[in-house]
Amino acid sequence: MTEIEVPESHPRYQSLLTRHRIEAGIERGITSQQGLIAEGRGEAFDYLLGERTIPSADDAARAAAALLLLAERPVLSVNGNVAALVPEATLDLAVAVDADVEVNLFNRTDERMRAIAAHLRAHGADEADVPIRGLEADARIPGLDHERGKVDAHGIGAADVVLVPLEDGDRAEALAAMGKSEVVIDLNPLSRSARSAAVPIVDNVVRAVPNVTAHARELSGAPRADLEAILRAFDADDALSTAEDAIRSGELA
Amino acid sequence: MTEIEVPESHPRYQSLLTRHRIEAGIERGITSQQGLIAEGRGEAFDYLLGERTIPSADDAARAAAALLLLAERPVLSVNGNVAALVPEATLDLAVAVDADVEVNLFNRTDERMRAIAAHLRAHGADEADVPIRGLEADARIPGLDHERGKVDAHGIGAADVVLVPLEDGDRAEALAAMGKSEVVIDLNPLSRSARSAAVPIVDNVVRAVPNVTAHARELSGAPRADLEAILRAFDADDALSTAEDAIRSGELA
Repeated sequence: MTEIEVPESHPRYQSLLTRHRIEAGIERGITSQQGLIAEGRGEAFDYLLGERTIPSADDAARAAAALLLLAERPVLSVNGNVAALVPEATLDLAVAVDADVEVNLFNRTDERMRAIAAHLRAHGADEADVPIRGLEADARIPGLDHERGKVDAHGIGAADVVLVPLEDGDRAEALAAMGKSEVVIDLNPLSRSARSAAVPIVDNVVRAVPNVTAHARELSGAPRADLEAILRAFDADDALSTAEDAIRSGELA
Repeated sequence: MTEIEVPESHPRYQSLLTRHRIEAGIERGITSQQGLIAEGRGEAFDYLLGERTIPSADDAARAAAALLLLAERPVLSVNGNVAALVPEATLDLAVAVDADVEVNLFNRTDERMRAIAAHLRAHGADEADVPIRGLEADARIPGLDHERGKVDAHGIGAADVVLVPLEDGDRAEALAAMGKSEVVIDLNPLSRSARSAAVPIVDNVVRAVPNVTAHARELSGAPRADLEAILRAFDADDALSTAEDAIRSGELA
């Protein structure tokens, strides 16, 4: 059952598993070359953070769960690295907050779109009854060029809340400009993606997605007023500056 | 003549050119998947440094030039990313300090070895009369497994000073344990590679290699006593802690 020949107790288990999944993603035609470079950037920031979920990121994950549960039409956006790294965890979250999943690529090709949709189905999307959108791409995000702006009219096009883990800055800003409430997962607290989010989670996607799901399950029976109170208590700017402090003051080695 | 359709005055010119060269390196069979991830890690640290050569890195580059000029048998070690990013600059440095170049890969395959040697020749190695070593691999670095430890007996095997830009930590430590004086170029000031170096240069290889060459040209006529004085004045621990401070106090965005 283990994907890599390293015990879970190994101090580098998570990063070795992450690396393995990204490389397997390349072999499957899921992860792009840009995705590998992005993975490296994430590794460096995660190293500076101490490869842990800092308390403010846990608060952000809870606020994200509240926002997704309050949404009328939540959509989880999946790109190549997300599909490679957290296929099951993304489907678990979709079930927990009753969201659709939309494949949404910065470098869109039909082959990668199909490979990613197939990968999500291989991880149980149909059994979990989670719709995989994105292949249609019959709507556009205003302000982005043609290929970059493609979305599903009944997915991200119609969504009120979108989870965009590891999103490109231009697209995160364009989605915010459309009036979407965004949850962004990004290890760089001052990236444009993180700064355009209603709820930025400065954490590794491998830790953050299951953490949002855990909070969503815990909050699933809560009254809307309680969810709204959690959201009101969350301050995105505070979360970003606390994460920046953690990166600056953490142990480098 | 320009490799990318972006003017040199563009604020992101250097990083766009770097990205382009790394991707072209993949197409040519020079850069590995691990190399792409390493490039991303470097981008994140360089971003934190402000994508500039800090004064302590310039001092380190000068000390590196002195060390290479003082060496009996200096060798410049070249891996996939170095070949993709700075082929000409590496040959210029080899000429300036009268060093051999040795191709030395963490993930060694005959195909990549040959592709890198051919790439260096395409950039003028023969015209510059710089020997390209590494294909022989008739000696071993003690303490490393067979493939990882291969070196040329008349290259790194016999060298007293080795420049290892972007080197893996295990190998940098093993070379230091053999008594080689190492110049390491690494953007992470607390990596094992940087810490095992006699002269660590915390800078982007794209800026650092030409900078060492410029110092070497300036120092080429200097008496040995002057070169030795430059080396004595250089403190590796200071250089690393100054770089760490720059990363922590720099502007994140």
